[in-house]
Parts: sequence; structure tokens; C-alpha cells
Amino acid sequence: MSITTTEAVAASPWAGSPAPSSPAGWIARAEEVAAILAVDAVERDRALRTPHDEVRLLKQAGLVTLLGPRAAGGAGQSWATAYQVIRRVAEGDGSIGQLLGYHYLWSQLPAFFGTPDQARDIIGEATREAWFFGGAVNPRDADLVAVDQGDHLVVSGHKTFSTGSKVSDVTWLEAAVDGHEDHVFALVASDDPAITFHDGWDALGQRLTESGSVTVQDAVVPWTAALGWVDKAFRPHVYNTLCLVAIQLVFTSFYLGIASGGLQTALEYTRARTRPWPYGGDDRERGVDEPYVLDTYGDLQSKLWAAEALAERAGEAITALHLDPAALTPRQRGEVAVLVAAAKQRAIDVGLEIGTRVFEVTGARATASDVGLDRFWRNVRTHSLHDPVAYKRREVGRFALLDEVPEPTWYT
Amino acid sequence: MSITTTEAVAASPWAGSPAPSSPAGWIARAEEVAAILAVDAVERDRALRTPHDEVRLLKQAGLVTLLGPRAAGGAGQSWATAYQVIRRVAEGDGSIGQLLGYHYLWSQLPAFFGTPDQARDIIGEATREAWFFGGAVNPRDADLVAVDQGDHLVVSGHKTFSTGSKVSDVTWLEAAVDGHEDHVFALVASDDPAITFHDGWDALGQRLTESGSVTVQDAVVPWTAALGWVDKAFRPHVYNTLCLVAIQLVFTSFYLGIASGGLQTALEYTRARTRPWPYGGDDRERGVDEPYVLDTYGDLQSKLWAAEALAERAGEAITALHLDPAALTPRQRGEVAVLVAAAKQRAIDVGLEIGTRVFEVTGARATASDVGLDRFWRNVRTHSLHDPVAYKRREVGRFALLDEVPEPTWYT
Amino acid sequence: MSITTTEAVAASPWAGSPAPSSPAGWIARAEEVAAILAVDAVERDRALRTPHDEVRLLKQAGLVTLLGPRAAGGAGQSWATAYQVIRRVAEGDGSIGQLLGYHYLWSQLPAFFGTPDQARDIIGEATREAWFFGGAVNPRDADLVAVDQGDHLVVSGHKTFSTGSKVSDVTWLEAAVDGHEDHVFALVASDDPAITFHDGWDALGQRLTESGSVTVQDAVVPWTAALGWVDKAFRPHVYNTLCLVAIQLVFTSFYLGIASGGLQTALEYTRARTRPWPYGGDDRERGVDEPYVLDTYGDLQSKLWAAEALAERAGEAITALHLDPAALTPRQRGEVAVLVAAAKQRAIDVGLEIGTRVFEVTGARATASDVGLDRFWRNVRTHSLHDPVAYKRREVGRFALLDEVPEPTWYT
Amino acid sequence: MSITTTEAVAASPWAGSPAPSSPAGWIARAEEVAAILAVDAVERDRALRTPHDEVRLLKQAGLVTLLGPRAAGGAGQSWATAYQVIRRVAEGDGSIGQLLGYHYLWSQLPAFFGTPDQARDIIGEATREAWFFGGAVNPRDADLVAVDQGDHLVVSGHKTFSTGSKVSDVTWLEAAVDGHEDHVFALVASDDPAITFHDGWDALGQRLTESGSVTVQDAVVPWTAALGWVDKAFRPHVYNTLCLVAIQLVFTSFYLGIASGGLQTALEYTRARTRPWPYGGDDRERGVDEPYVLDTYGDLQSKLWAAEALAERAGEAITALHLDPAALTPRQRGEVAVLVAAAKQRAIDVGLEIGTRVFEVTGARATASDVGLDRFWRNVRTHSLHDPVAYKRREVGRFALLDEVPEPTWYT
Repeated sequence: MSITTTEAVAASPWAGSPAPSSPAGWIARAEEVAAILAVDAVERDRALRTPHDEVRLLKQAGLVTLLGPRAAGGAGQSWATAYQVIRRVAEGDGSIGQLLGYHYLWSQLPAFFGTPDQARDIIGEATREAWFFGGAVNPRDADLVAVDQGDHLVVSGHKTFSTGSKVSDVTWLEAAVDGHEDHVFALVASDDPAITFHDGWDALGQRLTESGSVTVQDAVVPWTAALGWVDKAFRPHVYNTLCLVAIQLVFTSFYLGIASGGLQTALEYTRARTRPWPYGGDDRERGVDEPYVLDTYGDLQSKLWAAEALAERAGEAITALHLDPAALTPRQRGEVAVLVAAAKQRAIDVGLEIGTRVFEVTGARATASDVGLDRFWRNVRTHSLHDPVAYKRREVGRFALLDEVPEPTWYT
Repeated sequence: MSITTTEAVAASPWAGSPAPSSPAGWIARAEEVAAILAVDAVERDRALRTPHDEVRLLKQAGLVTLLGPRAAGGAGQSWATAYQVIRRVAEGDGSIGQLLGYHYLWSQLPAFFGTPDQARDIIGEATREAWFFGGAVNPRDADLVAVDQGDHLVVSGHKTFSTGSKVSDVTWLEAAVDGHEDHVFALVASDDPAITFHDGWDALGQRLTESGSVTVQDAVVPWTAALGWVDKAFRPHVYNTLCLVAIQLVFTSFYLGIASGGLQTALEYTRARTRPWPYGGDDRERGVDEPYVLDTYGDLQSKLWAAEALAERAGEAITALHLDPAALTPRQRGEVAVLVAAAKQRAIDVGLEIGTRVFEVTGARATASDVGLDRFWRNVRTHSLHDPVAYKRREVGRFALLDEVPEPTWYT
Repeated sequence: MSITTTEAVAASPWAGSPAPSSPAGWIARAEEVAAILAVDAVERDRALRTPHDEVRLLKQAGLVTLLGPRAAGGAGQSWATAYQVIRRVAEGDGSIGQLLGYHYLWSQLPAFFGTPDQARDIIGEATREAWFFGGAVNPRDADLVAVDQGDHLVVSGHKTFSTGSKVSDVTWLEAAVDGHEDHVFALVASDDPAITFHDGWDALGQRLTESGSVTVQDAVVPWTAALGWVDKAFRPHVYNTLCLVAIQLVFTSFYLGIASGGLQTALEYTRARTRPWPYGGDDRERGVDEPYVLDTYGDLQSKLWAAEALAERAGEAITALHLDPAALTPRQRGEVAVLVAAAKQRAIDVGLEIGTRVFEVTGARATASDVGLDRFWRNVRTHSLHDPVAYKRREVGRFALLDEVPEPTWYT
Repeated sequence: MSITTTEAVAASPWAGSPAPSSPAGWIARAEEVAAILAVDAVERDRALRTPHDEVRLLKQAGLVTLLGPRAAGGAGQSWATAYQVIRRVAEGDGSIGQLLGYHYLWSQLPAFFGTPDQARDIIGEATREAWFFGGAVNPRDADLVAVDQGDHLVVSGHKTFSTGSKVSDVTWLEAAVDGHEDHVFALVASDDPAITFHDGWDALGQRLTESGSVTVQDAVVPWTAALGWVDKAFRPHVYNTLCLVAIQLVFTSFYLGIASGGLQTALEYTRARTRPWPYGGDDRERGVDEPYVLDTYGDLQSKLWAAEALAERAGEAITALHLDPAALTPRQRGEVAVLVAAAKQRAIDVGLEIGTRVFEVTGARATASDVGLDRFWRNVRTHSLHDPVAYKRREVGRFALLDEVPEPTWYT
């Protein structure tokens, strides 16, 4: 299948075929999506092309409602499957993998933070409507402020990053509540006139994530839609904090997908185009027989498999915690947070190593800009700075040495 | 429990308690064994003390017959559980983990190579008698020769390595059959007067594996006991070759156990004894708060978890192949061989890294010989040279690049 | 000094001041040049702007004639100094460092290959005229062919790479001589109508080196200008082959300069803009006090100094070989080639490591495209693939293990 | 020359031959010594044999008085040469390299700390008598105390480490002076009955350095011999603190020597004994032709050369500071301290990497205890923990980032 996303969206490749009914089926679906995304990933990346069609493709493929309840038309899959799907999509296009991963988290925000009614109603409607979620969420700063106006809140301010922005149907506004210590998550339609998305996301990697800034001017949100707020007070629960663990494993998943995409892309290049070195004293006919080429690919593949295996173990562990949110303890949450912190480190390390070393086994001509082999390094390098990996090592170190689990923060 | 092996064997700690009935139970049992082994592991290692008591302990714990059929009094556990058990035992003492792992492989040799009758009879008797297996197996050289004498074979010669030797009840002799292309596996009692085990195993690591040389003078073996030979001809089968994959994952398992043992030992030392550095400009009261200490442990623990996760995935894959030996295809066997080759690389890398870097987080006084913190590096370093890890990278590289699985050899 | 190259060229900053008279003086001059180049290096790189002004700046600074004889107005400096100058210039702009380094090699080509008269005459004129050299040299393919036409050669064909092309005054054509085994170097004016430089150099790094392809149609070169050819035969000499060692150390020098530029750029960024991490449990006011930041910079700086020290040792060794070309033996040449091969490996390793890890100590916002911090990784990554570094390791390995020096080839 | 130290000492190999007259000559002499030391280094190491003969050999070779003034019969060489000599001796035996390096530092202690008269007199006598120096110096604890008794001090107490102890002629006692803030260095004859050297140095590496503990009971030292004390007050000077920089480069030098010794020993083993791998699909006759063997040796050799080059640069820098002690500024001292801190990191890294990876290119049989190839890892691993390398990275990091040089401490 070598049609571009735009062509695929027009052709509706899955229309008429039944939805997958198993995790393996959904993963295979994600691989089909990835193959389409990869076709013009280099060109779209260079052009900073807003991924409207790519989000449409995710919707057509049914991936947007993967976690949604079956009763509402969703696939009813587990987080473990969602992590696998994110990885596969990121193999084809790291930015789209990120967008999908963030969407999963945000589409489940009512489950993490909301009252049971909010969770049921919002997730139900989002599934039925196949909303694609964006989010102006950046808790390190209190740059959006919600003011109490009786039965509703009015939100105004500016956020530096608003991932998904223009390609989303709905957007979470994360805001400080004036006169309260707690923040609030409030959902607004992305085309609400109170919201202005700005261009200007021009980073070296993950370029199509539409992570530019956003200005909000008097967005109105009813108190009843403020997740987890009852009688104008936020009711905290351990399960809220699992959200941060879940998003860290989302990051890990698309790092691994990008790493795998880089490795697969390089392998194809080497098979097709890499020449043996004629000055080494040996007389090899094929580049694929070079000892250093085989050695390097063997090393990289082994490291990637190990990182994937750890991430999968973490995915199974976090999925288990979702089964009974009410029973979740801080210690359980903390132990999985440590496992995710470990998986994230391994994913970053192998992603950067693959991103750098693949060139040694493809050769000098693979540096041409139109080959685009650098995007894997750029993508992992950019997002893996979200929070310092040194502190992830520290978290795992504290657990191993002192049997302490990390305190929940917006980054742990 | 801080009694030595010798004390434990005298006390029969598990006498009277029911055998574990689940994989988790057996793994917990292995951890109890490891804790005992660790008590005087340093002293026994330095003294090159023949591990008679340690093998007795394995028998008392029921670990020797872990893979044996329940009908014959064995635990009837899977290979996946056996790999976990090997890891746990090796945490306490790498040599004993190796002896147990080799024993598992050798106790199952009739299943890999024998006729159905041989498999049933030999494994049954071995389980009932709780035989501990050794092996004079070194197929790279044809240094034992079996001569056909009508209804029996007479085996003579010399093997450089005979792991388990003096602590085994029975020993496999792997011999070239005079006038044939194939080798034979023949089981003899380890106290058969035809066999002389020599001292002289004095390597830098895995010192208690009793891997010295052996001389065989006219050992008599009936043709009926020659595994897989029917009418004086060897009947090869794909399942034979799975044996090599299984042993490579045995290696991987005890490397991981040694690595984990090293990390745990260092963590305990750091908690108890490592002082903060007084000249760094900070005023820390505890060594465990040093940023570099936490960073290093976090890094090592994450890498170890990743290697373990990959090995577990490989363990599950190989266990699946044991379920229907008759249906095993070379491709299935080969794909798992590649996965095991990858896991082995990761285990070696992390084992050597832990073995070296733990000193940086324990400090100068941890180099005292009676601390014995160097044994983890020595143990991984020694056995991981069994066959060149460069060729394991190459195998994985060939698979990734050329979709080729390795040809079965005595090392793949 | 924060004026751009274009502004500097207009201002002629060194007009009227005396030329430096010592190596240290020339190195300081190169640092001044680098500071100017750095001002808009990011913008020029993104715009693929042909470096006409940058070459003018090198001329104004006197760096173009650094190796030229004093009698002809050159600085009469040694190769050791030239390598240092290349490093400094590459700190400011890796592409310009490469252009200058290639220029040095090509400006000295008559010394390596020519007869004594050719060396004196061509180098003399080049120095007096301050020619900037380019080269269509790609000996792996015989894609330019020179045909004997009596007293001159006529050269035609196509080269994939012609570094310097449009910004050069003169260009070497490296061509196969029809009917001979040897190749020839022939110098032509870069604006010779027989030559057409094509656009199209668009690689991920070293983007301003004008390394596009070139077409030659009937360029006429007198036999007397064919370097080292006497009576239509090439007279080979050991000193010819030192040329390849010299260019490999040119590569090494600009890799080191790029690495150093990356480190300096990151250090400035961290000092000015990197914030401490607020969720780590410590209460630090400055990013520069983060333990992981200091640790990482200390590690990178130490590695860079070691690579630089080795390259300087190699620079001194090769400079010594230039002193008496006639006496040069293959063994001497080979030993220095090995030293250069070692230095190149270290430079590549540290260059890639700096290029990747600086982001961890600058932080997420340093990934903005207008910061341009990725150019150091891109620049080292691109050119370091010129020939496989695996074969450089192999050369050093053969020397260490077998006491064999590499056979001269076009890459050793 | 394959005679043992004991045989060499009996044969007095250099008796009658003139002393070397150049740095190169002394380095060659050190290489001769190293070749002798290597002959039975493995056996002596395992036996923990007190190196009486080895110190005699150093004296016979003239190395003990290398830094002593020519007027007193010394060689009058520079510190730069001394560092090279330490490296060469450590190639043959790491422990003896350490003993010699410490001796150099301690023999020059009067220059660092003493008055001009003390420096002249003590160094003069030490040179004439060819004293071998030991030291009970461990400033982290105040465990020796000197009490003022009018015209002399009486020193008593216990030190955990006293390097050189039994093989020394004289020993420095570093003691806290009762009632003063400053410590004192006092020289005593090693056979002074007030001193009792204890056995018990049994570490995993550097086993022959005789670094056991020492008890002092009422050792009498005249005030006039208290280095740098005038009128019962210590007169501090910047040059005192260069001593710590000098010893850190001594450490670095013998780490590099050990690393080089490991590499050379492995190379010899591979040449003589390593077999090609028969299961890799290639048909190589020699182990030395294995691609992974050549690759690994090339990598290790390149890294070692880079570390050596940086250490040599540091050696030249510190030598320059010795030329005019009175003019030494804290900044000059600090910049060289940073350079030494960098060199030390590189030496440790490459030493540990060589110590570990050489086994991969020698093969499984090189793990036999009588080969002793593990001593290089053990030796570097043990001493490199003297002070945390993490703080060396931090020092270099602070310099790079903040332009701050380290405050002098007993470890910087």
C-alpha cells in the first residue's frame, strides 16, 4: 500500500470492512495506518503540514475510539492495546503517534478526574461523536485562570503549548481556579470563538503535533463540567495521579515506535542501496554482508526488543491498575510509576542510539535531505526532553535504594 | 535466614512442608535457596569448595526435579518457570545457578534426543531418584570416541570440560561414534570406575561449577541407551536442535541472576556503609542521598529490568515450542533462537556493567577481598565467553536485515 | 563582536592591522573569524546560502594563504597550525571549516603530487592571488575522463560531488586518463565555460559546503599542468599518499571544531536560559547547579579534550613527515595514518555524543528551530560517513594486533 | 628478557652501564623494568608477595632517584618524565607503578611543603641514600596526633592505610597537631621502633602496594623537620596545594599504564592462542582475522591513545607550574587541576573498558586463573575508587559551565 494519507482518506480503505475484534486485529489495523503515514512522512514533516488528513485517517481506521466503550460504538480495548497501537502508528509518523497518544489520555481524562457521571457522559459522547481531543495543559505555570461566575467558570489566558490544537474537535483547558488551590480541567469545542490557536510550533522534531500556543478569552464552562469538582470543591483521589503515569507511558510508546520506524527504514535502505566497502581487503558483493553492518543491526535490534519488552511489561502493569480505580493505593501507583520511569529511560536511550547509528549502516548518501533518515533522531531528541531523564533515573534509583516511590507531580 | 548451606542442609528447612504448587511458589522457594547460598558464597568461592552441600540443598528444596513429571514425583513445571528458578538461584550463587541450569538441560536430554521410550524411562527414573546430572559435552572437538561392540558401545577419551562432574549422580558422555558421522549421548553413573574426574578447574569466575576435565577408559553403554539411535543409526529431528536454544537461554538466565545478585548486594552495602563525599560543596548526611549514587542505581536497575523482560519474553516463546515437539519447524526454532540471542546480549551487557559500576556507588572500601563484590563481574565475564557474543549480534543482524534464521550448530 | 559575515566583510575588520606572526596569533585570528561566522550560522544553514561572503572573510583574515610561502605573501605556517585553524573556524561554522580544510589540502596538492617546478609555480601563484580552491575529486568512480590530445588533455564527464564549487576561484579536476592506469589532477579556473556546477546539494548537515555535482565538457589542460606527470607518465612517490592522511586529519579537525562549537553553544544556552527542575525535591535557584547538568558537561568536556589532544599529537606527527618528503617511507606514512585513524574515531564519537547530549543539559525549549542546536549533530553525522568508521577501527586494530600499517587507498 | 624480578635483582642488569641521559632514555629504562616485572606479576599478585625485590629493582634501575637533583646523584628529570616512567612501570605491574608514583610524590614533599632549607636538605639526603618513601597519609581523618614537647613533636595513633609501609626506607607521618588547626608532615625511618606496620591489605586489586594499616606509638620528630612549620606555625603557600594535583596525575599515570599493560597482554594472547570461530559461516584460519577482534582492538587502542595524549598534555602543564613555585597562582593551579581531573576520568573509563573487553578478543580460555588477565580490571577498579570520579566530572563541569576552578582539598 503506497498511497499517501490524503489519497487513503479519499479512498476510505476500511469502509465496509468489519472492525477488528481483538487486540491483535487492532494492532494490525494500526500497522496498516502506519504504512500509509510513512509514504509521505518526510515531505509532510519538512512542510510542517497540518495533519488534518492524518487525523481523519485515524478516525476512519477506528483508532480514535479504541478506548471508548462498545456501547457507545467504541472498540472497548485496554490501555495495554492502546500503547501498542500508539507504537505502531509512531513507526509510520512520530508526530501522529504522539497526537494519538495524547488523544487517548485526554479522551480518558473524565475517567481519571471526573465524577462517575462525568466519566460516563463525556466519554460516551466523545465516543459516539469520535471527537479528537487536544489539550492546553501545562501545569508548570498558572497561565490560564478560571474565574467563578456563579454556575459557570470563565477562563482566560495564554498557554505556550497546546498539543493537537487545530486538528482537534475539542480541547481541554487546564486552568488555575481563582481563589482555589486546585486546577480545573474544562472541555471546550476547539472552534469556540473564545479560543485562538497560534502558529509558531517550529521545533526540530515532532513537527506535526500542532503544539503551538493558544490564547483564551472568556471561555465559558459550566461548573458541572469541571472534572471532579463537586460543590465548587475538587475531590482528589489516588486514581487522578495515575494519569501522569499513563501519559509517561504514552511518551515511552511513541519513542519506541519512532525507534522502530527508524530501524525499519534503515534496514530497507541498506537492503536496497548500501554498497560494500571496496577498500577493506575483502571482496564482498553486497553491503548486507559487511560484518560491521550485521553487527550494528544486531546490536540495535536487540536493544530495541529489550526496551519494548520492558514497556510491554509496564503496559500490562498499568492496565491492571485501571481495573479497579477505587482500590488504587499510592504504593501501587508508585511502583508502576517507577517501572514506567525505567521503560522511558530505555526507550530514550535506544531511540537516540538508533537515530544516530543507523547512518553508519546506510552510508553517506543516506544523509540527503530527501531521504529524511534524520527525522527519527530529531523526533526522539525533541520530545524526550519533556522532563529531564536524569530525574527518571533518580526515581528508579530511590526505589531501588530506599524503597521509596515517587511523590505524584505533574511529571511523575 | 542467615545460616550457611551446610547448616541448612543439616536442618532440612523444607522437610515436612508441602511442595509449592504454582510457578510463583517455586520461584519463592528458589529465593529461599538463594538467600541461604549467599551467606557464605564469598568464602566458598575463594576456597574453590566443591558444592556437595549446595547440590544437596537443591535436592531438599525440590528444585532438582522441577521439570520432572508429577507422576514420578517431580514438580511438573514448565521451562519458563525453570528459567526463573535458575535466575533466582544464581542471585545467591552464580555457580550453583549454572549447575542447576545445566542440570535442567541435561535432565531433559532424553526428551530432546531420545526415542519416546527413552524419554519416558530415563526422565522417569531420574525424577524418582532425584539424580543430579553432569555432562562431559564439548562438541567442538571429537575427543571422546565410542566404539561399537555389538550390543553395546565402549567409550574412551578425554574431555577438557565436564561441568558438574564430582557433584553429579549421573553424567552424559558426548562421544563421536567410530565409523559414523553422528555423535552420541550416553548416560553413565558418575561413580563408574571407567570415569576419572580431574581437579584443575581454576578460572576467574563461576569457580564452583566443577568444570574440570575428565578421562574415560572403556565405559560401557548399551546401544539401547544411546539417545535417538535406532538400529545403530541416529534419527535426527528438528526438536533435537531446540536443545541448543534452550541452553543459551539457561546461560542468559544465570547471567541475569548474577547481575541481579550484584545489584542487590551493592544496594545493601551502600545503604549500610557508603558515606557521603565531604568535599563536594554539599552537606549531605547520608551516602544514599548522593545524586550520582541515585543516578547510577537508577540507570543500572532500569537496564536490568529491560534485559529481564526480554529474557522472560524469550522464555515464554521457547516454552510454547516445547508443547508440540513433533510440529516444530526450523523457522519457529530459528525465530526463537534469534530472540534468545538478543536476550543473551542484553544480559551480558548489563551483567558486565553492573559488575563494574557497582563499585562506584559502594566506594573504595568495598574492594576489600572479604567483601567479595567482584565475584559478579568475574562470574559474568567468565561464562559469557562461552561463545563469542559478536556472533550473537550477527545472528540477530542477519535476521533483521535478511530475514534469515541461524543454522543450528552446537552454539546456536 | 556580533556582526554577521556580510557586515564584517564590508567592514574589513583586519585591514590595516599587521598579520599575525606566530601560530598562536593565527589561531586567535581564526577564533575571531569563528565568532563572526557563528552570528548567523543558523540562518545561513537553513537558507542553504552560498557562502560567498564567508570565503571573502577567510581571505580578508589571511587564512586562505596560511600555508603559502612567505615569499609569495603567505603566512608560511605549518600543517599543525592549519589543523588548529580549521578546528577554530569550524567551531563557528562547520561548513566553512570544511571548505577551508579542503582548500588547504587542495592548495597543497602540487606539493604532494607535482614535480618540484609545479609545486613552486602553482603554489606560488595561488598564494599571490589568494585563490580559493575547490575540487571535483571522487576517486571511487572514474567519471571524469581525460583524453590525450598531443600537448594537452581534454577532460569531460560528471562528478557527483564537487566541494567548494561555486565559491572557488580554481577547481581541481581529478580524472582517469584514457589509456593509462593512473588518474590525473588538473587545475582549471572555476569560471571556465567548460565547467557547469549544479545545485542540488541538500544534505542534513554541512549544508554550506557547496558539494553539488559538476559537469565538465571539453576542459583543456596542458600536459605540463598534470601534477606529477612527466613525459606523459605519472611518477609515483610515497609522498603522494601522505595526501590522504592529511585530508583524513582535516576531517578530524573540523569534526572536533564542530563538537567544540556545539559544547560552547550549549554552555552559553544553559548559563542564560536553563531552569532548575522544580519537582526533584531540591530547591535550587539556578539550572547551572543541577548535579546532572554539571556531571554531563564535565563528562563531555573531558572527552572532547582527550580527542583534541590525540588529534594534536597526530598533527605534530604528520607535520614532521612534511619536513623531508623525499625521505618519507611507507612505514612512517602508515604509522601516522593509523594515528590519524584513531583520532578520527575519537572525534566522531565525541562529536556525535556532544551533538546528542547537549540537549539534555539545555532543556526542551532548546529544540526550537531558531535555536539551531541540532546543527552540530547534523554536521558531524553527515560528514563522518565519508568512509566507514568501522574500517578506521579495523586499521588501528590491524596495527595493534599484527603490526601492519594500512595500504594507501583513496580513503586511508 | 624473561627473568623474574628476583633473578634480575641478583644479576644487577644495569650495573656498569651508564645512566640514561635523556627522558627517552629513562622511559626506555622503565620499559626494561616493566618487562622484568611482568614475568611473574600474576604469581606475585596471587601470593600477595611483599615487593622487596621489586623495590630493589627500581633502585638498581635508577628510577627511585629520577627526580632527585643531579648534584646529589639523582637523574634530575622533570615531572613530565616521571609520569611517563610511572606509566611504563605500571604496564608491567600496576602495584609497583603505584608504589613508584607515590614515592615520587612523597620524595618531593619537602619541595611542596617545606622551607627552602628543608627542601634542599631532605631531598638531597634522600637522593644520596636512594631512600624509598612510604606514607601514612590519609587526611580525611585526624587519626594521628602530634603533641608539642618543646623542641620536638611526639606522634601517636593509627592510620588505616599506609602505602609502601614495609618496603619503604622512610615514611611520612601525616598528623594533626594538637592545639593547632594545621596538620604536619613528619618523616621517620620506617624501621623506627615507634612504628608498627600491620598486615591485612587484601583488596581485589593493587594487591602488592603494602597499603595496610599502621600504629604509631610515641614517634619523636624535631620541630625543625616539620615541613613548612617555622616558629611552630605552618606557613601556607599556593604551591602546597599543587601536591594534590600532582598525586591525582600520578594516579592517572598508573591507571594508563595498567590499561596499556592489559591491552598488550591481551594482544599477545590473541596472536598466540585465540582461534577463529568455526560456526560463523566464514572460513578463517586465524583468530587475528576475525572482524570483531580487529574492530574491538582498534576501538580500545584508539581510546587508550586519546587518554594518554590528554594525560601527557596535563603532564606538560603541571611540569610548567613546577618551574616557578613562588609565582604560582590559585587560578593556574586550578586550571591544571581541572585538566588532570579530565585526564583521570578518561584513564579510568578506558582502563575499565580494556579490563573488561579484552576477554572478548582473547576468548574463554583466557579466564583461567593462571593467565591472570583479570588483574588489569581489578587494579584499575580498585584504585580508581580513591575518590569518587563523579566529583571529577563535577569539577570539570563547573569549570566549563561557570569558569570556576576547584577549591584545593585533600582530593583535588
